[in-house]
Order: sequence, then structure tokens, then C-alpha cells
Amino acid sequence: MDFQKKLEYAANKNKSFVCVGLDSNLDLIPSFINKGKLPQAVFNKKIVDATADLVCAYKPNAAFYEQNGSDGIAALKSTCDYIRKRYPEIPIILDAKRADIDSTNNGYAEFAFGYLKVDAITIHPYLGRESVESFLKYREKGIFVLCRTSNQGAGEFQDLIINKKPLYQIVAENVAKRWNKNNNCMLVVGATYPDELRAVRKIVKDMILLIPGIGAQGGDLKKTIYSGLNSKKKGMIISSSRSIIFASKNKDFAEKARLETKKLAEAINALI
Amino acid sequence: MDFQKKLEYAANKNKSFVCVGLDSNLDLIPSFINKGKLPQAVFNKKIVDATADLVCAYKPNAAFYEQNGSDGIAALKSTCDYIRKRYPEIPIILDAKRADIDSTNNGYAEFAFGYLKVDAITIHPYLGRESVESFLKYREKGIFVLCRTSNQGAGEFQDLIINKKPLYQIVAENVAKRWNKNNNCMLVVGATYPDELRAVRKIVKDMILLIPGIGAQGGDLKKTIYSGLNSKKKGMIISSSRSIIFASKNKDFAEKARLETKKLAEAINALI
Repeated sequence: MDFQKKLEYAANKNKSFVCVGLDSNLDLIPSFINKGKLPQAVFNKKIVDATADLVCAYKPNAAFYEQNGSDGIAALKSTCDYIRKRYPEIPIILDAKRADIDSTNNGYAEFAFGYLKVDAITIHPYLGRESVESFLKYREKGIFVLCRTSNQGAGEFQDLIINKKPLYQIVAENVAKRWNKNNNCMLVVGATYPDELRAVRKIVKDMILLIPGIGAQGGDLKKTIYSGLNSKKKGMIISSSRSIIFASKNKDFAEKARLETKKLAEAINALI
Repeated sequence: MDFQKKLEYAANKNKSFVCVGLDSNLDLIPSFINKGKLPQAVFNKKIVDATADLVCAYKPNAAFYEQNGSDGIAALKSTCDYIRKRYPEIPIILDAKRADIDSTNNGYAEFAFGYLKVDAITIHPYLGRESVESFLKYREKGIFVLCRTSNQGAGEFQDLIINKKPLYQIVAENVAKRWNKNNNCMLVVGATYPDELRAVRKIVKDMILLIPGIGAQGGDLKKTIYSGLNSKKKGMIISSSRSIIFASKNKDFAEKARLETKKLAEAINALI
């Protein structure tokens, strides 16, 4: 099953637009787990077991695993293997924000799709379509291109005006019109910028948007949903990480993560 | 010693502008090495031993290690540890092309500067300065921002015109004027675009430029040198990977890598 079908299936089954971000920083996971072998994987498995009937996807961010070197990468792989085996209906998005020249991108694509066997990856647009063919050629995978990022200083280049349009809108146009011949392109747009989200939605029609920034980053849920939904009242992946996975530092951390996930999923559904 | 001093020392000592790119794809290294434990590290150590008196820096590209998962990362670390111990005067640039929001970039910075202990890293500009403070705050490290990349399709966004200037020149201006308060910023400009290289040199004055694209990618050496030198007839790191490290697939691979490195270093020096 390709990424988009898998996503739709999981979203329908669990009635959820919520993607749990597995940003499982070793310094922030409960101290009673942070010992023994691959503690990040131990933590993630408990979060996944507690939330798998409430999400449409999981999104581990590579940075929080890389920072622990080869053990961190082993924990990331163990997490992905676990989700794939126990919950094969839930897609995994590797938030890696990669992009290099094409021959090098083959290595990153092999990391994501060959080694970790995830369903989707996030990439940078700066080198252009030609450089990322190494990702786009995977028809059955999801390729999320950074468009308008959620950070405070996102506008430095993304808002620069080219022919009366900001750069992020040109990225959206190019990805929708020129990059998407395999129908596997999607965009990342931060919940912290609902007006820009609305503009992107208009450009890309029904394309799926990955929307981080709800929760710790402070994005407004109502504005996000009204700006992000497509014509079928779908097309969004609302990603939240820290406010879910670190909802508690105690023995009840998985239970609290479940409660936060449920609360967010219900709050979104109530707005649709 | 900070990155720039280390670079200058190595460049002076070895009379070389050449950086050897350790793009040691497991599928391309000699078959008699590609067995046993961490073969990429075994290969790299032989390349390093054969070239350490001829280079100003080494540049492993993360993609070629990640594609082999946790073992690949262990091979990358083993390579960096080896260079640092045996040839402490030669700086290591991690070609990782990372960039995420600031809290996440802390993880990538920890990977580069805490775990691998390299001297410099390459990053994407798309999220703006605010997002990459997590890298810029390392005063003693080198932060190479992608400006004009060497790939064929680089112009898709990088050449878009904003106020009569292409985006890549705005990136160069912002990095030189607004990002560089710790004097640790540098730029990546491909040798495949000598005119753009000349324009960037004009904007950033004497700033160090990392210039890939000589060798397998086909950049013209003479044009590159004339366009890239700064007012002190320095300020360039000329990076070549495949045409050096894969010069031979036989037992003489390290010897051939040495010959290619020497040839390139001498060809550059003859032009200055």
C-alpha cells in the first residue's frame, strides 16, 4: 500500500488527523527509562502502544537519534521496526529535512526507505527538483517538501518577494505543478502561520499538508484547521511532539501521552 | 584552535587548497576491503594516511554513512576519531546539509560537534538565521551555509530574482552581514558555476568558500580558481571526492588517491 493510501486508511480507522512526533530526546525522557540498552526505543514503544489507535501517523525526527550516534540510530531503527510489525497500518514519516546533490541523496533515500523502511521523508527545497529525483522516484513513498516552516524567523528567505509572490508560494507552485509527476509530493507548512497555510492550500488544491507547530510551538488549532482542510475536509496531518510525549515525566507518561493525543484528536474533530 | 586557524595552518603547512571528500559509498570501495568490520573506516584510514600531507581538510558526507545505518555511523565516528588523533592539524568538515527549527538543530549540532567532534558542518539556509543559532553559537567551529550549489538544477530557486538580485546572492549578503557575528560563517558555492562564484566572492569579501564540483562533477579548475580566490590569494577550499578516492579499485587505491590529490593540489598552486 502506498503512503497516501496507508495514511488515509489509518486516519479513517482511528478518526484522527493527529501525528505523534517521536522527538524522544534522551535528556528529556523519564529518568527511570534512561538507562539500559536503547532507552529511546523503550520509551517510544510505550508511547506507540498507548497511542496507536488514536493517530494517523508517527513522525520520529532524526536529529534526536543522531545526537546519540550509532546507538541513537539503532534506537530509531528499533522504533521503526516495532511500529511496522505491531501496527503495520500506521505510516511512519522520517522527519530528516535532507537534501544534497542527486548521487548523495541516493544515500539518504537508502537510509530512510532501505534501512529504516519508513513510508515518507521530509526534504529541503533549496537545491531544486533535479537534485531530489532520488527521493521523488520512490512512487509509493511520501515526499514532504519544506514550504513554510513553523519557526519564528522563517520569513527571512521564505517571505522574499519574487514577481509579487513570496518564495514559499513559488515553492508550493513548483512542487504542485512540476515535482509531482508521481503524485507522491506533499508540503510542510507550520501551524504558527495560518494565513500562509491558507495561501498554500489555495495553491496546491487537495494536496496533503504536514502541519507541525501545534502544542509547544503555540500554533492556534482553530485557525490551523480552518486554513488547512482541503475540499474533501481532509488533507492535513497535524503533528504534535513535545506536548504529547513529554506530558508527564513520571510512571504515567504513556497514559498521559494517550490522554493528550485523545484530547487533540477530539479537539480537531470537533472543529470539522 | 578554532576552525579557521586550523584550516589556515594545514593549508600553509601542506601548501594545499585541496579538501578530500570522504564520500566512501560502501558499494564503490574496493571489493577486497568491503568485508569485515566497518569497512568504510578501514578504507578511509588508508586514504587519509596516503593524503594527509597534501590536503587542507577532509570532508566526509554523512549520507554515505547513514545509508548503512548504525554501522555506517560507527564507521564515520571511527574515521573522525582517527583523523583527529593521527593528524590533529587537519580540520574535518561534516558535509551534512542539515537545518531544522532551533531546538532540533541542537541535536544535529550535538551529533557533529559532541559525538563526531568535527570542526565544521554544512547547513541549509531555508529556515533563516534564527533557526540555525544552535550551530552559529559554536564560535570555534566552521558553519558552511549552502549558497549556490553545484548541481545542474540549482537555479530553480537559487536564481529567482528578488529586487534585481538572485536569491543565492541574498543568501550570501545575509550570511556575510547578519549571520556572521561570531566570525564563523562560510559559504558553499559550486565550481560548476564560476560566474556565480565570482559574484559571491564580490559580496562576501575575504570569507572562506567551500567549493565542491571539481572532478566527477566537471567544474573548470582555472575559472574556479580565478573566480574564487580572495584578496589575499586564499579563502578557498577546493573539494574533490570521487575522482580522488575512487581513482583505482585495486590494491593501489590509496597510492592512486595520493597521486590524484597531489596532481590537483599542484594544478591549483600553478594557477595562483
